[in-house]
Amino acid sequence: MPPADPESCWDDPLWQSLLPIGRDPVTGGYRRFSFTEADAACRSWFRTAAAERGLRAETDHNGNLWAWWDPPDRGIDSRALAIGSHLDSVPDGGAFDGPLGVVSAFLALDLLAARGRVPDRPVAVVAFAEEEGARFGVACLGSRLLTGAIAPEAARSLTDADGVSLAAAMAGAGLDPAGIGPDQELPGRIGGYVELHIEQGSALAGLGAAVGVAESIWPHGRWRIGFAGRADHAGTTRLADRRDPMLPYAATVLAARACAARLGALATFGKVRAEPNGANAICSSVTAWLDARAPDDATLTALVDAVLGAATGAGQEHGVGVTSRCESLTPIVEFDAGLRDRVAGVLAGQGIAAPALPTGAGHDAGVLAARLPTAMLFVRNPSGVSHSPAEHAGPADCAAGVVALAAVIDELACR
Amino acid sequence: MPPADPESCWDDPLWQSLLPIGRDPVTGGYRRFSFTEADAACRSWFRTAAAERGLRAETDHNGNLWAWWDPPDRGIDSRALAIGSHLDSVPDGGAFDGPLGVVSAFLALDLLAARGRVPDRPVAVVAFAEEEGARFGVACLGSRLLTGAIAPEAARSLTDADGVSLAAAMAGAGLDPAGIGPDQELPGRIGGYVELHIEQGSALAGLGAAVGVAESIWPHGRWRIGFAGRADHAGTTRLADRRDPMLPYAATVLAARACAARLGALATFGKVRAEPNGANAICSSVTAWLDARAPDDATLTALVDAVLGAATGAGQEHGVGVTSRCESLTPIVEFDAGLRDRVAGVLAGQGIAAPALPTGAGHDAGVLAARLPTAMLFVRNPSGVSHSPAEHAGPADCAAGVVALAAVIDELACR
Repeated sequence: MPPADPESCWDDPLWQSLLPIGRDPVTGGYRRFSFTEADAACRSWFRTAAAERGLRAETDHNGNLWAWWDPPDRGIDSRALAIGSHLDSVPDGGAFDGPLGVVSAFLALDLLAARGRVPDRPVAVVAFAEEEGARFGVACLGSRLLTGAIAPEAARSLTDADGVSLAAAMAGAGLDPAGIGPDQELPGRIGGYVELHIEQGSALAGLGAAVGVAESIWPHGRWRIGFAGRADHAGTTRLADRRDPMLPYAATVLAARACAARLGALATFGKVRAEPNGANAICSSVTAWLDARAPDDATLTALVDAVLGAATGAGQEHGVGVTSRCESLTPIVEFDAGLRDRVAGVLAGQGIAAPALPTGAGHDAGVLAARLPTAMLFVRNPSGVSHSPAEHAGPADCAAGVVALAAVIDELACR
Repeated sequence: MPPADPESCWDDPLWQSLLPIGRDPVTGGYRRFSFTEADAACRSWFRTAAAERGLRAETDHNGNLWAWWDPPDRGIDSRALAIGSHLDSVPDGGAFDGPLGVVSAFLALDLLAARGRVPDRPVAVVAFAEEEGARFGVACLGSRLLTGAIAPEAARSLTDADGVSLAAAMAGAGLDPAGIGPDQELPGRIGGYVELHIEQGSALAGLGAAVGVAESIWPHGRWRIGFAGRADHAGTTRLADRRDPMLPYAATVLAARACAARLGALATFGKVRAEPNGANAICSSVTAWLDARAPDDATLTALVDAVLGAATGAGQEHGVGVTSRCESLTPIVEFDAGLRDRVAGVLAGQGIAAPALPTGAGHDAGVLAARLPTAMLFVRNPSGVSHSPAEHAGPADCAAGVVALAAVIDELACR
C-alpha cells in the first residue's frame, strides 16, 4: 500500500490518476505486464494525458507510445527530442520505476507551456513497451525492436510463463505483430532522448541531492549455472557417498558475494531451481542464475571468471558437474558526453546541484545510446529500495525532477 | 531403464510381471502414486499373485492389501505373522524400494509350499498404502492409520499437489474414506511383522554380505526454515544495503553439512523455494527444508540446534529474519530385541551371515513397532543408490533375500 502519511505522497493529479492501475490490493505492488488488461489501462491513461494537453498520440509498430508536441514551424534541425520512460513493471514492483519518467515528462511540458515556451523542434513524450522484460524475458524490448537490437522473428516467438507468444499477446491487445522490427524512419527523426528515472539506489541520498545525471550504465549480464549431482535418499546415503549439488551451489553463492565485495562490483543469486525438490531426497540437480554487474568490462569479466571458477572447484569437491551459459551480456554504456555536459550545464545554470552517477541498471536510454545521443536524470530514492512495493520518492524530489527536466527540454528544444 | 545386461536383472516371473507397471518410459523410474491408475494396476497385480497361490486376498479399511495363508487348524497362539512391504514409489523412484519386499514375501511362501511346509498360524503377505507419502505428504500413512498413529479426520483432509484430498482420491479408487482409521481387530490378530527391503545405502556391500538385519531406525525429522529479507534491484542495491536471504541460506547449507559430518549424522537440504525467484531481483524470502537424522535422539537434537543456530547467526549478519518450524519428528525406533535375535539366530543356523545394521530411513515396520514386535531384513544394494531409477540389487542377492525370509517364516510360523 502507499505510504499512509499523505505528506509523503506526490499529490499531483496526473500521478494520482495512474496510481490505481495494476496495483495489487494486498501488497501495494504493481503487476503491469505488457499487453495485459493493466497494460491496456496504462495505454489508455497515456492517450488521455496526451489528449488533455493537445499532444498528438500514436503507437509505433513496436507498441511504444508517443505523444507529440509539434513546433509551429520547422527549423534547420528538425530532429525531435524524446523524453519519457516506461509504464510496465516487474512483478510486485514499485510505483515509480518507469511511470515517474512518463508523468514527469508530461508535467515538464505543462510547466513550459504555462511559461509560454514554444518548441523549435518536435518534442515527444514516449513510453517504451516491455522495458522490464517481466513478461517475455527480454528487457527493453520496445527500444530494442525500434533500433534493430533484436530480430523481429526472434521477438515474435518469445513466450511468457504460460507459453503465450509475444505475437499472440500483441494481437490480443489489438497490435499487429507482423509489423514489429526496426523502424526505418522514426529513429532518424529523433535527435536525442532524455529519460528521467527514480534512482534505484541511495547514492543521491548520501550526497544530499534531489536529482542527478547518469554517467554510465555498468556492464552487466546473466549466467545460468547448472550443478548436476545424483538423486539419493536423504536418510540413508552416507555423506561420503553423496553427490549433492546443493552444496557447491551454496558455496558459489557465498563466493560470489565475497568476489563482488573484493572487486567493488555486484553479484546476486535471486533465482534457483532444485530438482526434484523433495524434502527427503538429495537433489539430482540445482540450476541457479547469477546476475553480475561491475563498473567496467574488465572487472565484470574478472568477477564472472572468479564465480564460475569457485562453482567448478566446489563441484569437483562434491562430485558434481558444473556447466554455465551466458544468457545475456550488455557491455558498458557511456552516455553521450556532449549531451551529458549540456544537461549538467543547464542544471548548474538553474542552481540545481546534480551529481553525475553511474548505475547498475539497464534502461531504454542505454539501448538507444547505440543509435543517438541519450541522457538520464535520476530522482532521489531515500531508502534506495527498488523493484519492491516499498520503492519511494518524496513529493518535493518528484517536483524537483519535473523542474530539472523542464529546464533540459527548454535548453534543447525550445526558443 | 533397467540395466541392459540381462545377467544383472532378476528374471523371476513374478518380479518381471510387476516391472512394467507405473514405469516412466524415458527415465526408467517409477511413479506409483497412491490411488492412481498405476496404483490400481499394482493392486490388481497383488490380487492376481494371491489368487495364483490360493491365498485369500483382502483390502483393509485403510487401503492396505493382505493375502492370507491360513493354517489347517488354529494352535494356542493363533496370532498371525505378517510379511511384506509396500508397492507405492517416490517420484522417479527405483524398482526395488517396496516391491522387493512384497515379491519376496510371495516367493518365500512358494519356497515353503514347495517344501511341503504347513503354517501353524496365519501368515499374511501385506502391501501397505502410501508408504512413501509421495502423494499426500505423510509417510507410512497406511500403517499409521491402522495403528492409530494419525487421526482419520486429519488424514482424510490431506491433499495432493493438485489439491485433491485423500478422501476424494480413495473414493475415486473405489475405497470408502469414511471407514479409515485404527482397526480394532486386525492389529490384535497380528503377532509380528517382518519386512524385507532393499538396503538404501551400501553398508552390506562394504561388509560383503547379501542380507542384513535391522537394528534400529535413526531418529529423524524435517524442519522448515524461513529466511525473510527484502526484495531489491540486483543491479543497483549496494552490497552493504542488502538484506539478501539467499546468503544466510547458503551459509546454513554448508553449516548443516559440517555439523552432520562432525556428529556422525545426516543433514540434507533437498527442497528450497525463493521468492519472487527473479534473476535480476534480490529475493524477498527463501524457504528451505532441513532433513536431519542421527544415531540417537540426543545427537539429533544437537545437530538441529547447531544448524538452526548457524541459520540465525548468518541471518543476523545479513539483516535477515530467521524462523523455523519442526514439520515432523520421529524418535529412535529400536526393533524388538527378542524378535531380532530370533531372526538372526535362524539365519546363522542356515549359515547366512546377516550383519545387524542401523538405518536412517523410516519404514512401516518402524510405525508398527509401537504396537507389535517387528523386524527387518535388508538386501544388498551395491551402489547404495535409492529413490532413483539407478537403484539396483543383483539377482543372486534378491534370491538370497527370499531364502532368508523363507527361513524366518519357517521358524516363526510353520511346523
